[in-house]
Amino acid sequence: MNSAKFIVVEGLEGAGKSTAINAILETLQQAGVASIRNTREPGGTVLAEKMRALVKEEHEGEKLQDMTELLLMYAARVQLVENVIKPALASGTWVVGDRHDMSSQAYQGGGRQISANTMKALRDTTLGEFKPDLTLYLDLDPRVGLERARGRGELDRIEKMDISFFDRTRERYLELAEQDDSVVVINAEQAITQVAGDISKALANWLESQ
Amino acid sequence: MNSAKFIVVEGLEGAGKSTAINAILETLQQAGVASIRNTREPGGTVLAEKMRALVKEEHEGEKLQDMTELLLMYAARVQLVENVIKPALASGTWVVGDRHDMSSQAYQGGGRQISANTMKALRDTTLGEFKPDLTLYLDLDPRVGLERARGRGELDRIEKMDISFFDRTRERYLELAEQDDSVVVINAEQAITQVAGDISKALANWLESQ
Repeated sequence: MNSAKFIVVEGLEGAGKSTAINAILETLQQAGVASIRNTREPGGTVLAEKMRALVKEEHEGEKLQDMTELLLMYAARVQLVENVIKPALASGTWVVGDRHDMSSQAYQGGGRQISANTMKALRDTTLGEFKPDLTLYLDLDPRVGLERARGRGELDRIEKMDISFFDRTRERYLELAEQDDSVVVINAEQAITQVAGDISKALANWLESQ
Repeated sequence: MNSAKFIVVEGLEGAGKSTAINAILETLQQAGVASIRNTREPGGTVLAEKMRALVKEEHEGEKLQDMTELLLMYAARVQLVENVIKPALASGTWVVGDRHDMSSQAYQGGGRQISANTMKALRDTTLGEFKPDLTLYLDLDPRVGLERARGRGELDRIEKMDISFFDRTRERYLELAEQDDSVVVINAEQAITQVAGDISKALANWLESQ
């Protein structure tokens, strides 16, 4: 392994991303990776967190247009990639991301059904060739995930969407995973310790292959 | 005149846009237009004004990437167009805009030198065929405009840019005006009452031709 890597965890609400991230950090530390930086999307910088709030909160009843949501996601992503992720990788720090571009592809492209052309135009324009080295996608039925999320307390604007929205989002996640060798699908309907175990194993295998 | 129109004022800092807007409102009222709505960009809705603040303010020293600035401009524009301008026009209310898409083309495309492909991709994706019926572009040497703006008090982040940025912005404004019959160029280096007079005359002529 000659250079720092960008590893991302993806999945629907309640898929167990926080547990997954802890498992990844532990596995990386055991593998001798000294410098690791966590990020989350949307967010992860002062400005990007302000954009996250614009997407998550209510604004005196004003409708947040689907296209606006998409543009804000990419605006936040550009700040994070250019100001945090790229400089970290360049200085030898590994980056572990809670969500990245695959979330936009799945939620806005799949869930909100924004056209493939628009999704591609925004991705190409903002990210170019930049992408994670490894993505661990935690797959589960949205009904299972939302039940878990509900157990944690209040649901936000996106989590209040109709179940069909999450079905489309999951379907797009699975399509993208099939097309991209850098995405590993983890069965996230298992018990959470089993999920963490699968993640550690998948990551350890991947690290050995580098 | 069968339907409400969207009229926009464009120009560099200190070009006299506020005076121009007053002249337009007066001319429209004299022409018997009963219902008029003012907008400004970026801004003009609760959410869009929050995005305006993200672009205008400092954020603990974090660099605002040029691409982020552009995405925020379009995010704010989508909110304004979809939630305010289109509904107003549909209900017979005329809209007078302080800036619109031509500002992004000139400032981000010209001033910041973002590529024509990127500018076109964003415009097409967010606005499609939507554009103002008439744009009055107040043209002046940026040195004259910045001198006027300085006289009004503190300069914001964009107004602190190098003069070459504004020279490129003006150049792009003039190129766009030449390519588009719906843009009228007004000499804004004249005395402010003369500028207002030229605007009223140009607008009155245009109204007669409708």
